[in-house]
Amino acid sequence: MMRLHNHPFSGNCYKIRLFLALVGLPCEIVPVDVAAGGHKTPAFLRLNPRGQIPVLEDEGTVLFDSQAILAYLAARYVPEWSGRDAVEIGQISQWLSFAAKELSIGLQAARLYHMLGAPIDIATAKSVATASVEILDLWLADRLWLATNRPTIADIACYPYVALAHEAQIQTDGLTALRAWLMRIEALPGFGDLADEQA
Amino acid sequence: MMRLHNHPFSGNCYKIRLFLALVGLPCEIVPVDVAAGGHKTPAFLRLNPRGQIPVLEDEGTVLFDSQAILAYLAARYVPEWSGRDAVEIGQISQWLSFAAKELSIGLQAARLYHMLGAPIDIATAKSVATASVEILDLWLADRLWLATNRPTIADIACYPYVALAHEAQIQTDGLTALRAWLMRIEALPGFGDLADEQA
Repeated sequence: MMRLHNHPFSGNCYKIRLFLALVGLPCEIVPVDVAAGGHKTPAFLRLNPRGQIPVLEDEGTVLFDSQAILAYLAARYVPEWSGRDAVEIGQISQWLSFAAKELSIGLQAARLYHMLGAPIDIATAKSVATASVEILDLWLADRLWLATNRPTIADIACYPYVALAHEAQIQTDGLTALRAWLMRIEALPGFGDLADEQA
Repeated sequence: MMRLHNHPFSGNCYKIRLFLALVGLPCEIVPVDVAAGGHKTPAFLRLNPRGQIPVLEDEGTVLFDSQAILAYLAARYVPEWSGRDAVEIGQISQWLSFAAKELSIGLQAARLYHMLGAPIDIATAKSVATASVEILDLWLADRLWLATNRPTIADIACYPYVALAHEAQIQTDGLTALRAWLMRIEALPGFGDLADEQA
């Protein structure tokens, strides 16, 4: 069975757990004691030289990075969540990069600051986070899903930190297109079980 | 013909110009006057809500984000530079995320600081940049290419800011595996013409 190296607080791990729930893939959860530096041990760094969770192991393949794990899982098991042609591949990849960068240095960083007191520049994080949710709201004003006319891994990569924006002390109340998109994801079959665990 | 919204200084645009040169795809270069805010105009923001170069236009498709543009171009025109199966797709995606995040907030930010005096936290950028080149060097110690046994868009996404590390005042002299990888990319057919323009 697949093994996900995981911490329940991590929004990046949440992306994977959410996707596994939505598509109904079984997976063993391997707890990583992040507080004790479990993601910086020599054994863990052999799995992921960046020293970050999540890491996925599946039939001898080891993958780090939440976007890469989503890309692998979709391509291997549920290709309808991937791009079906070059244009869709590009459109999905746009938002995987957005999740990897803007959502990480914005919403994720601000959440770590407010929830765990992480030593980050909160002014910069708040500025990026605020711009990020506004970009998403504008983009979603005339779209149901981020990349294509159906939900894809782009939506799953961006969902967790946006849904947890309140923990980053970023307001999204007035962003109606963004909030409607969150609710569309939360209405997908399979969402319910996992949402309780994370929220 | 394809149109690339471009600035010659940008390492993210360099990724695209390099890839186009390596695979021999013709493209019209559309200059963006970044110094005058040409990437923040309403017209440009309709192409890319993030307000960043590069942007590619190709037969009615508009794509932003250098990683996404590489993913699109490879999938559409030269699929051997993309992943051929789920494992390769995941392995390539790992380094697209690394390029989107670590290389951007590390080497790219430090280069902007030292070359253009951009108002960024140089201590943080230098720390991320130094860790990034060490991660790449370790990873490449027993590999020829970042993601698979052949060059892929993962290598192209990571090459420019690493090759320009000296402009970010980051030393890579002792990183023999990383420097051998740079030289392998520079020995690829088609590299030469463009390298002169950028370097």
